[in-house]
Amino acid sequence: MTTSTSAFLTSLFTNIVIFAVLFVVFLVLVKRASLAVIYYSKRVLQGSGAPDPKSVGPFTWLRDAIRASDTELAERAGLDALVYITLFKTAIQIFGVSMLYCIIIELPVNVTGGYYEDFNSTPDVVADPNKQIQFTGFDKMSMGNISKKSARLWCHAFACYFVAITAYYFLWTNYKKMSDLRALFLGGVTRAAPRQYAVLVTDIPEADAKTRHSQVDSFFRRLHPGTFESATVISKYAKVEKVYQEKEKIRKKLAHAEAVYAEAQRKDVEKAKRPQHKVGFLGLVGNKVDTIDWCRDQLAALGAKLADEQAATTNDRTINSAMVYFNSRAVATMAAQSVHAKKAETWQTQVAPEPRDVIWANLGIPWWEKFVRQSAVYGITFLIVFFFMIPITIVSGFSTLDNLKKFAPFLKSVFNISAISAILQAFLPQLALIIFLAILPKLLLFLTVKEGIASIAHANRGTAGKYYYFMVFNVFLGVTVAGSALGQLKQMTKNPSGIVDLLGSSIPQQATFFITFIALKTFIGNGLALSQVVRALIYLVKLKFLVKTEEEKLAAWAPGQFNYGANVPNDLLMVILGMCYAVIAPIILPFCVLYFGLSYVVKKNLALEVMVPDYESGGRMYPHIHKRFLASLFVSQITLLGYFGIMQFTATPVLIPLPILTAVFHLYTKKSLETRFSSTAIEVALQDVKEEPSVAEVTAAYTPEYMVNESVETDIEAPPSKAPEIYRDSEPLTSNSLKSA
Amino acid sequence: MTTSTSAFLTSLFTNIVIFAVLFVVFLVLVKRASLAVIYYSKRVLQGSGAPDPKSVGPFTWLRDAIRASDTELAERAGLDALVYITLFKTAIQIFGVSMLYCIIIELPVNVTGGYYEDFNSTPDVVADPNKQIQFTGFDKMSMGNISKKSARLWCHAFACYFVAITAYYFLWTNYKKMSDLRALFLGGVTRAAPRQYAVLVTDIPEADAKTRHSQVDSFFRRLHPGTFESATVISKYAKVEKVYQEKEKIRKKLAHAEAVYAEAQRKDVEKAKRPQHKVGFLGLVGNKVDTIDWCRDQLAALGAKLADEQAATTNDRTINSAMVYFNSRAVATMAAQSVHAKKAETWQTQVAPEPRDVIWANLGIPWWEKFVRQSAVYGITFLIVFFFMIPITIVSGFSTLDNLKKFAPFLKSVFNISAISAILQAFLPQLALIIFLAILPKLLLFLTVKEGIASIAHANRGTAGKYYYFMVFNVFLGVTVAGSALGQLKQMTKNPSGIVDLLGSSIPQQATFFITFIALKTFIGNGLALSQVVRALIYLVKLKFLVKTEEEKLAAWAPGQFNYGANVPNDLLMVILGMCYAVIAPIILPFCVLYFGLSYVVKKNLALEVMVPDYESGGRMYPHIHKRFLASLFVSQITLLGYFGIMQFTATPVLIPLPILTAVFHLYTKKSLETRFSSTAIEVALQDVKEEPSVAEVTAAYTPEYMVNESVETDIEAPPSKAPEIYRDSEPLTSNSLKSA
Repeated sequence: MTTSTSAFLTSLFTNIVIFAVLFVVFLVLVKRASLAVIYYSKRVLQGSGAPDPKSVGPFTWLRDAIRASDTELAERAGLDALVYITLFKTAIQIFGVSMLYCIIIELPVNVTGGYYEDFNSTPDVVADPNKQIQFTGFDKMSMGNISKKSARLWCHAFACYFVAITAYYFLWTNYKKMSDLRALFLGGVTRAAPRQYAVLVTDIPEADAKTRHSQVDSFFRRLHPGTFESATVISKYAKVEKVYQEKEKIRKKLAHAEAVYAEAQRKDVEKAKRPQHKVGFLGLVGNKVDTIDWCRDQLAALGAKLADEQAATTNDRTINSAMVYFNSRAVATMAAQSVHAKKAETWQTQVAPEPRDVIWANLGIPWWEKFVRQSAVYGITFLIVFFFMIPITIVSGFSTLDNLKKFAPFLKSVFNISAISAILQAFLPQLALIIFLAILPKLLLFLTVKEGIASIAHANRGTAGKYYYFMVFNVFLGVTVAGSALGQLKQMTKNPSGIVDLLGSSIPQQATFFITFIALKTFIGNGLALSQVVRALIYLVKLKFLVKTEEEKLAAWAPGQFNYGANVPNDLLMVILGMCYAVIAPIILPFCVLYFGLSYVVKKNLALEVMVPDYESGGRMYPHIHKRFLASLFVSQITLLGYFGIMQFTATPVLIPLPILTAVFHLYTKKSLETRFSSTAIEVALQDVKEEPSVAEVTAAYTPEYMVNESVETDIEAPPSKAPEIYRDSEPLTSNSLKSA
Repeated sequence: MTTSTSAFLTSLFTNIVIFAVLFVVFLVLVKRASLAVIYYSKRVLQGSGAPDPKSVGPFTWLRDAIRASDTELAERAGLDALVYITLFKTAIQIFGVSMLYCIIIELPVNVTGGYYEDFNSTPDVVADPNKQIQFTGFDKMSMGNISKKSARLWCHAFACYFVAITAYYFLWTNYKKMSDLRALFLGGVTRAAPRQYAVLVTDIPEADAKTRHSQVDSFFRRLHPGTFESATVISKYAKVEKVYQEKEKIRKKLAHAEAVYAEAQRKDVEKAKRPQHKVGFLGLVGNKVDTIDWCRDQLAALGAKLADEQAATTNDRTINSAMVYFNSRAVATMAAQSVHAKKAETWQTQVAPEPRDVIWANLGIPWWEKFVRQSAVYGITFLIVFFFMIPITIVSGFSTLDNLKKFAPFLKSVFNISAISAILQAFLPQLALIIFLAILPKLLLFLTVKEGIASIAHANRGTAGKYYYFMVFNVFLGVTVAGSALGQLKQMTKNPSGIVDLLGSSIPQQATFFITFIALKTFIGNGLALSQVVRALIYLVKLKFLVKTEEEKLAAWAPGQFNYGANVPNDLLMVILGMCYAVIAPIILPFCVLYFGLSYVVKKNLALEVMVPDYESGGRMYPHIHKRFLASLFVSQITLLGYFGIMQFTATPVLIPLPILTAVFHLYTKKSLETRFSSTAIEVALQDVKEEPSVAEVTAAYTPEYMVNESVETDIEAPPSKAPEIYRDSEPLTSNSLKSA
C-alpha cells in the first residue's frame, strides 16, 4: 500500500474541503436557537440556556476550549472527560517537542541523504531501468534515503533518545498531575458522595434468604464495631426490573397519547378522536382499544404488581452480595482494601462503584465463576483478534450476487437493473467486514460485561483494552507487515526476532499510507464531531415525526457521554503510529500534532458544552492510557532496533538500553502512581467535607430505581443516587436522569 | 552423559553402603548422653533433657517423625518448618500416585515396545553394526523403546493427563490445608504476638530528626483516632550496634579469661597465672596486659560509650521509617493493607515482621532507591545465571600448575612431588567452579538483602527464587540440552519452539544420569543430615580446644534453622526432574519417591528434635513452593509436547490443553489462596486471645538489643521480643537468644 505524492495531496485537499463544509454547517446551525439543545446541551439542562447568538463569534468555542483549565474542565465535565482530553494534550506535547529535533535537524539530514538518487545513478541501474527505485518526495524525507552504514545514522540514534526522553518527561508530569487532581476531587468536596461511605461486598458464604440480612449485619458489626452503620443485601433484580420497564413503557405511551389527543383537541375540539391502538403483536393484530383508558388500567395493575415484585425481591431473591455502609469515609476506604474473612475468597470487599455505575446483574456471580467467565472471554477475544478474518471470508464468499438471487428469487428483477447490480457487486464482498467492524466495540463491551465486572466504568476500560489489541494487530501490524494477524501469530511463535526484522523492513514503506489515514481522521472525524450534523439531523427528524411530549423531546437530543471503550483505542492507535514513525519518517509528526491538536479543541468543546457523563469513575482510565503510551514507545523502540540492524548501522547496540529503560520507567510509574488510581488513601478520604450524607441518603442512593417505593418516588423529584459525586454544579446532568425523566 | 546400567548399579550400591555406615554412626552417637545437645537440641534448650537411651530404639526417631501430625509439627517447629516438610509430602503424594499408572501400566508398554531390538534387527543395521543403537535395560523401560507413530503412544498421552490431574489434586488439597493451618495459628493463640499490633511504616516524608517523632505521632493520631497507640521512629543503628558488638566481644573475652584462670587455679592455686594478651593487631604485637583487668576497664568505658551512642541514635539519627502500634489487631491488619497518604508512595505501610526477623539496616531506604536496587540485583542475577561460566573459565585458565609455580616459586619443590602435582592438576581447573557453587547461595542471599527487603524471611524467599532459576537453567537444562545457559538463551530469543524440540529430543537420553544424581542425593544427603556427623564433629573439636564457658558451649552446638534459601530450590530441582521424566522414563518415579520419602522423615526428625527457627514468618514460603511445583509441571508438559511431536504421534494436539490447564490452575489458586498468605484477614486478627501484650511490651519487643538500656537489661532475663509468636512452648527457642546468651 504505497501512495504517490499527488494522490496524497488530492486526498488531503478533499479532506480539507469536507472539513470546511462541515465547519460552515456548524457556524450556521450553532446560531439557531432551536438547536441550542444540540450545541449547548449542558447549559440547557442546567437551565442557563444557550448564549446570545450575537455574542458568539465563529471561534468562540475554540477560545473557550483553549482557555478552560484542567480544574475547570474537571468541574464542568468530570475527571473521566479530563483524563480523556489529557490523552490529546500528552500526545501534542510529546509529538510537538519531538518535532523540534526530528523536523528541524533530522529531516534535512534525510533529504540530503541522496541514497535513492545515488542508487538510481549507479551504472548498473542506469543500464537496467527496471532496477530503479521509484521514490516520492515523501520517501526522500524518510530514513530510507540514508545510505547503509552511513555515519548520518548517529543523527537518528540520537533522535530515538530524544523522543524517548521527551515521552518520559511528559508522561511523568501528566500522570502526576492527573493523580493530584484525582486526590483533590475525591477528597475536597462540598458534599461527600454516598459511594465514599459504601463498600461492595461479594462472595458472601451460603445462607438462606431469610437469614442473609442478619448474617451480613452480624459479620460486619463484629469486624467493625462502632463504625459499621448498616447493610443492604442485594437481590436478583431481573424480574422486578422487567415489570418496572413495562410500567415505564405504558407511562410514556400514556403521556404520548394524551399529548396527541390534546393537540388534536386544540385543532378541533369536536372532531378530535381519542387515540386507539391494537393490543396484539406489534400493534398489528388484536382488539382495538382506547389507548388512554387502556394505559390507565394497565398502570394501576402494574403498580400493584410492581409493589408485589419489590417485596418478593427483597425477601426471597437475595444474592451473595451486599452494600455495606460505614459512618466514616476513612473506615470505608480501609475496609475496601482489607481482606476480611479467614477464607479470603469469601466476603470480598471493594470500593463501591457510583450507584448509577453499578451493573446490578453482575453482582452475585461467585468469584470462581467470574474466573471461568474471564478466562473464556479472554480466549474468545484472542480468537476474535487473530481469526476474525476466517468467518468474514466465508460469509463474503457466500454473499455474492448469484447467491443472493438464489435465496431471494422474488428480488431478481431488482437485481437485474444494471446500476443496482454494479453497486451490489462492488459492495457485497465488503459487507460482512463493514458490519463486523461496526459492531466490534459493542461486541467487545458485551463480552467484557459478561466477565462479571461490577461497574460500567470498569467494563469500558476492559473494552478499550481489548479493542486496542485488535487495532494494533489488525490495523497497525496488519498494514505494516501486510499480513493477517494470524500470519503474524505464526511468525511470532516460530521466530520472534524475525518479526522485528520484518517490521523494520516494512515500516518505512507504509509512512505515506498512514499519513493519509491520519489526515482523514483529522479532518473528517473532527469535522463530524464539531458540527454534530448526524445528531442534529436525527433530532430534527424525530422532532418532526415522533416527539409529542417534553420527555420524548429530551430523549431525542440526549447527548450521552464519550464512548470511551471505542474512542480511546482509536486515538491510541494514532499514538502508536506517531511513535513508530517519528524517527523513521518524521514528516508524520506535523500530521500527528494536527490530529491531536484539532481533536483536543473539538473534544474539549464537546466535553464542556455537550457531553453528559453516565458515570464518574474519578479518572481511572488514566493508568490504562499511560500504559498504552508506554507500550507504543516500547514497540517503536524494538522496531527501530530492527530497522537500524537492516541499515547495517555498526553502533546499533547503543539503542539496546532504550526498551529496557522504557520497561523500567513503566515499573517505576506503576509502583509510584498507579496505586493512587486504584485505591483511595485514608488521608484523602479524611479531608473535611461541609455536608455528609445521612445513612438514609446513602441507602437510598444505592436503591435501584425499580426498587424505589411508589409513594417515595413521587415525593423525591431527583433521587440523590443520581447526583454525580465530584462536581456540584452539574448534579442534574446525568444521562440516566435524562433517560428516566 | 549416559550411564551404563552396571555403572549405575555400582554407584547405587556405594551410596547405600555409605548411608548404612552413616546410619550406624547415628545409632551409636545418639545414645551418648554427652551428644544429646546435638540430637535433641530442642529438648535440651527447653530443659526437658534427652530421652533415656534405653527407651530409644534404632527406629524411634522414624516412628516419632511419622506419627507427628501437621498441627504437632507446627506447634513444635513452627509453620515455616511445616511448610518445608509439606514440600516433601506433596512430592511423595504426586509421584506415589503417578507410579500407580506409570509403573504398573505404562512401564510394561514401554518394555514390550521393542523399538530398539526391531531397529537393530533391520537388515540395513545388521549389515552395518555401526548403525546399531546401544541400549541398556533402563533405556528399554523408557518411552524411547516405542516405535514412532505407534498407537501405544495413547497410553503415554493418557499418562500425561494422569500425572497432571494427580498434581492438581494434591497441590490443591495441600495448599488449602496450609492456608487453614496458617489462619489457625495466626489467629487462635494463647498469647497474641507483639507483631500483630505493629505496622511497619516506611517512606515517611522529609522532616528533621527533632520533629520526626511528633510528625509520625500526629499523622497516625489524625488518621486512626482512638486506635493508634504510639510509634517508635527507627534510627540508623549501625554505630550503636558496632559499640554493642565490641562490648559483647569484650564481655565474652572476660568470661573466657575468668574461666581459664579459675580452671588453672583449680589445678594449682599457687602456680596459676592470670591470663595475659597483647593489645595490638590480632594479639600479635603491642603491650602485654592482664586480660581480666583490661577487659573490666574496657567494659566500663564501653558501657558509658554505649549509653551515649544510644542517646545520640534516638535523638539525631532517625530515618524515614517507624514502627506504629495500635490497640487492636484488627485495626493493625487493616492499616497494614491500606494506602495512607495522598502521595501513595509516602507513608507506605506493611505488616511488621517479627522483631527478630527485621533487617534494621534495610529500613530507611526510600522506595525509589529500593526500586533501583531491585532492578540492579535482578540484572546481576540474570548475568550470574547465564554468564557465570565466563569468569570461571577465565579463572580456571589461569589456575594451572605452571601459573602457580610462577606466582609462588618458593613452593616449587612441593609442586614437584609427583603425587601432589597429580592431585593439583586434576583438582585445580575445578577449583574455581567448586568455590563458586559453594558460595552461590550466600552470594544470592547477600544480593537479595541488598535489594532493601525488610525481613530475613522475605530475603530467604527471594534467595530461593533466584537459586531455583540457577538450578533449572544450569543443572536441569544444562545437563539435558547439554549446553551452557547462555547458549539456551541465544536459542530461546532466536527460536523458542526450537528449544522445545531440542528438549524433547535430549531429555530421554539423560534419564539414567539424573536417576544416579537423585540416588546420590537420597542416600548421601540424607545420611549426613540424619547422622549430623559434621555438626557433632565440630562440636567435639570445639569442646576440646576452645570452649571454656557455658555460653561458648551453647554456641558450639547451636543448631540454627533450615537454610531455606538453599534447601528449598535443591528439593524443587528434584521435583522438576520427577515431573519431566515421569512419563518419558517412569523408572525415575520410585527413586523420586524414595528421595522425598527419606528426606521427609529425616528432615521432619530434624524439625522436631533439632532445628531452632531464627524467625517465624507464618509459612509464607508455601505459595513460593506451590508455584514452582506448577512451573515444573508446566515445563514438563511443554517438553512432552515436543517429545510427542518428535515421536510423530498424530494425536499430539490432544496434549495442548494441558499447559493451558496448568496456567489456569495457577491463576485460580493465586486468586483464591495466595491472598491468605500475604495478608491477614480481619476475621483472623479478631479471634479471641487470652493474653494481650501491653504497649510497653510491644515497644520493648521492637527495641533492638543494642538499644536496650543497661539497667533494664539486667532486670529482664529474656526480653519479650525474642518470643516466637505462634507456639508458646518453644518461647526460649530462638537462635538469636542462643547467640546473644
